[in-house]
Amino acid sequence: MKEKEILLVEDNPDDVELTRIAFAEAKIANTLTVVRDGAEALDFLFTRGAYADRDPEDLPSIVLLDLNLPKVDGREVLQAIRGDVRTRALPVVVLTTSNEPFDVEASYALGVNSYIRKPVDFEQFVWAVKQVGLYWLVLNQPREGG
Amino acid sequence: MKEKEILLVEDNPDDVELTRIAFAEAKIANTLTVVRDGAEALDFLFTRGAYADRDPEDLPSIVLLDLNLPKVDGREVLQAIRGDVRTRALPVVVLTTSNEPFDVEASYALGVNSYIRKPVDFEQFVWAVKQVGLYWLVLNQPREGG
Repeated sequence: MKEKEILLVEDNPDDVELTRIAFAEAKIANTLTVVRDGAEALDFLFTRGAYADRDPEDLPSIVLLDLNLPKVDGREVLQAIRGDVRTRALPVVVLTTSNEPFDVEASYALGVNSYIRKPVDFEQFVWAVKQVGLYWLVLNQPREGG
Repeated sequence: MKEKEILLVEDNPDDVELTRIAFAEAKIANTLTVVRDGAEALDFLFTRGAYADRDPEDLPSIVLLDLNLPKVDGREVLQAIRGDVRTRALPVVVLTTSNEPFDVEASYALGVNSYIRKPVDFEQFVWAVKQVGLYWLVLNQPREGG
């Protein structure tokens, strides 16, 4: 079986670093691929631009998606993922500082699997990201090849 | 804030009991409502039949759904949930003994949030259900009123 890969779509370098720390603490050694904006996320998933050489079948096991992103917004990324037959069933977890009911509602309406509010406290952030990693990489059963 | 309720759709009494044990161990004290077949699940969610007196706005925070159920199959329950605007965004986790790629694929295609294979081992079953409860009741941000 291929190793499960995590795609983190996050423009804040501190949050990227905290996510790495959380996964290390949880002994999650899976490849963590980081893209910094929504356009890069879509290039990665649909093997375009800088990612044209990737195998389109080679999807990550989980996408951790920030909502407020440069270039292409997280909501648009989610819409593009759900709108394409290749990525429609890909597990996507929104990981954001926003707790706006509007953002929560819109994310579920667009078909997100789960919506996690990033805790502001360092310890709680690391705990939350650990749980997210364990849930989606250890417990959840992805699609074949996912 | 209203207490978060769990709807467990499960016809196997042993699995219901193990789920109760797991939630007790995880100190998840939320109301666990158990329905024994798919028809009862739909009656509960859409406030029909024996549940006609329920408030239709009063949806559970999470639905734990077995696939192989009497009367109405879990796949049909999922389809009905995703096909109705009132329940479209309700988090649904399939919890099943089936590991058939076909079932996994079909569940994601029907819009399940997560697919968990029930471990056969008792300890592992309890661990898995605990993690599921913690993830969806503590970590995940449900919709307003969810």
